Amino acid sequence: MKPREMTATAAAAAIREGRLTSEALVESCLERIRERDAEVRAFAYVDADLALGQARQRDDEPPRSALHGIPVAVKDMIDTCDLPTQHNSPIFAGHRPGKDAACVRILRALGAVILGKTDTVEFAAAGRLPATRNPHDLRCTPGGSSSGSAAAVADFMVPLALGTQTGGSTIRPASFCGIFGMKPTWNEVSFEGAKPFSVSLDTIGWMARSVADLALLAEGLGIGRGRWQPRESVTGLRIGLCRTPMWEQAEEDSRAAVERAAAVLQAAGATVEELELPGSFVEMNALHDVVMQGEGRTAFRDLYLAYPRLLHDDFKAKVEDRLGISPRRLLEARDAIAVNRPVFDQLAAGFDAVLTPAVPGEAPESLETTGLAIFNRTWSAMHVPCITVPFARGGRGLPVGVQLVGPRYGDIALLGVAHAVAGFLATA
Amino acid sequence: MKPREMTATAAAAAIREGRLTSEALVESCLERIRERDAEVRAFAYVDADLALGQARQRDDEPPRSALHGIPVAVKDMIDTCDLPTQHNSPIFAGHRPGKDAACVRILRALGAVILGKTDTVEFAAAGRLPATRNPHDLRCTPGGSSSGSAAAVADFMVPLALGTQTGGSTIRPASFCGIFGMKPTWNEVSFEGAKPFSVSLDTIGWMARSVADLALLAEGLGIGRGRWQPRESVTGLRIGLCRTPMWEQAEEDSRAAVERAAAVLQAAGATVEELELPGSFVEMNALHDVVMQGEGRTAFRDLYLAYPRLLHDDFKAKVEDRLGISPRRLLEARDAIAVNRPVFDQLAAGFDAVLTPAVPGEAPESLETTGLAIFNRTWSAMHVPCITVPFARGGRGLPVGVQLVGPRYGDIALLGVAHAVAGFLATA
Repeated sequence: MKPREMTATAAAAAIREGRLTSEALVESCLERIRERDAEVRAFAYVDADLALGQARQRDDEPPRSALHGIPVAVKDMIDTCDLPTQHNSPIFAGHRPGKDAACVRILRALGAVILGKTDTVEFAAAGRLPATRNPHDLRCTPGGSSSGSAAAVADFMVPLALGTQTGGSTIRPASFCGIFGMKPTWNEVSFEGAKPFSVSLDTIGWMARSVADLALLAEGLGIGRGRWQPRESVTGLRIGLCRTPMWEQAEEDSRAAVERAAAVLQAAGATVEELELPGSFVEMNALHDVVMQGEGRTAFRDLYLAYPRLLHDDFKAKVEDRLGISPRRLLEARDAIAVNRPVFDQLAAGFDAVLTPAVPGEAPESLETTGLAIFNRTWSAMHVPCITVPFARGGRGLPVGVQLVGPRYGDIALLGVAHAVAGFLATA
Repeated sequence: MKPREMTATAAAAAIREGRLTSEALVESCLERIRERDAEVRAFAYVDADLALGQARQRDDEPPRSALHGIPVAVKDMIDTCDLPTQHNSPIFAGHRPGKDAACVRILRALGAVILGKTDTVEFAAAGRLPATRNPHDLRCTPGGSSSGSAAAVADFMVPLALGTQTGGSTIRPASFCGIFGMKPTWNEVSFEGAKPFSVSLDTIGWMARSVADLALLAEGLGIGRGRWQPRESVTGLRIGLCRTPMWEQAEEDSRAAVERAAAVLQAAGATVEELELPGSFVEMNALHDVVMQGEGRTAFRDLYLAYPRLLHDDFKAKVEDRLGISPRRLLEARDAIAVNRPVFDQLAAGFDAVLTPAVPGEAPESLETTGLAIFNRTWSAMHVPCITVPFARGGRGLPVGVQLVGPRYGDIALLGVAHAVAGFLATA
């Protein structure tokens, strides 16, 4: 097995035990990038010498943490002090912010190696699409907006990557690329130094090739109050099957994946119970959109004034109120969402995890879209932790994940459940 | 009258009409800083040549906006691309972030001159106090955390300054220094590039020496949907007199200021009606503190890991959960606050403005405290616009402001009312 094929957890153990160097691991990742990224186009920027230099420094010192020596890719709207942060925007072409985002500063302090910057939808919001392609089928989108992060992890270019989610920008691309993705509880990780879009919703997320790897990064980033406890068996788990009001808009691939997951979990001794959301959730996706777009007016005003020619019209439309979101609509949406957060927490508290679609179906066969977030917006609005687990293949042979959701601050418990579910589904 | 003694509005008009240059205005401000700032210590950093260079560039071009050529001071936890941003923290001594915060980028695009960086409580949150002293009495605090911004405006070193408010960090120092301060509706101005403390509460605020100057900056920063309309008369205004549950904790100076303001407004033909907050507001300050401190755990984790020796223990306490704020307490506080926001909007909608104390009293005679935020926390939690208007003098001869509050997104209307109230109170 090549070092880049190892999970982060396995690689970190090998590094600690002297069986692997960070340099060899990083070199193995860089080799894959050289082989594949001209086609996949996951990365917006890689500085091989800089990455190898970091790795050698890590190899020369005692381990700082469980992430010591592990390469991590960073979505290119998250600031890095030693690499450009270009946001897939002409405004920031070649821009070097000179300061790490909080999440990057944490990873560096823990001994991780920042491997490179991954392509993104412009400002992780709208405008220009990334050049990234789905490694499972280069004609297909990898999803977005954390497109490069998902493709890089899926294609064994890096074991871990940071993304963000405001609508569905972590869970969707992870599902389309057949890997694990996590969006934690809102504000469990500081968003400082990532480009804001909608402050009420913006969340740092991440991708990996196992639940243990998601947990490795979650613990490093400070999620939760204790260590995670991987559960080994699905027997006895209480699963809430939540089709959501968007169920009929899902393709058969995604509906079948969720229903089959529910069925095999039940057959293995889990309790699966339908969770019907209250009527107030029918409008939740629409309310999410009002908040996201309404807050986008604030987020892009500076660029609107400073770079009127270079700013994409999608952002000008937000700043100029062309989306017609009045302050009253924004407040009503924000308040209605806020009222429903404890309602969902209460519902979710009756289960070990809520099982729900991650995506409408397979990755669309197009590079002109990154797909729909209809199975993500409600959970982003609720501020709750979400994990996508790869499970099925669709009609075109592409991956389709399912999603596990918990109550706010239930991140660590959800990781434990996801470990058992993922292990079981991998053999089901 | 020296240029620095003009309001920003008057100076901007003089610049537009060719009666004043930005260079002369900036030089006049710099002269005052040279004369006074060794004692007042409002500024953490000034680069006179850089400021004059900006001013000369503005003088060489057509006006970009109503703020063209006007010097603005910036609180030193808001990033500036050409000046250090030091946060009053040894971690950031001499640090140059290389990128403007969104609010600074807006001001530059509008032609304002960034005059310098003003001293602050460490990270605008806790830890080290600023060196700034109250220009009305150098033995007294100017208030905080936007200490330098308030002192600089009050002492005629600059006509406008940016601050922030998470608890009471704009309104309190403005009141203590006898000037006007505004905290707008939460997220009306992007907080990007200012150091986060509590994302649910952090708000960019500003100080000036007139309501029209507050409005000048408000319009530049994109507050509201239309132009402000200054009201000229207090006759017919509907004023809600809100003593708040903290009334008995105010000193006689502050209570007297609010009651006298109410009395003279009523005598001039305003309708003044007592506004008693519902019982749910008794705990609002405490809930605000839970959210602020609980979210502080997230905000400082990166510095905690990266700079364990340089980070003040106040911040370590937050990250290490020594304040005992569990996720459940944080959520309950956040949810309870969210439920009350529309409740207050509804109450405030019955008035043109809510009149309430800005501060407990005069500035304490100490440089070891910046005073209490007990008359600010509830409004910060409610996300509502607040304006402090200088009015009275306390027993020690120091300024005591009163505060006007409106419903969320009522910023522009509140400015119009504050203009009439301030004009009237100045002669009452």
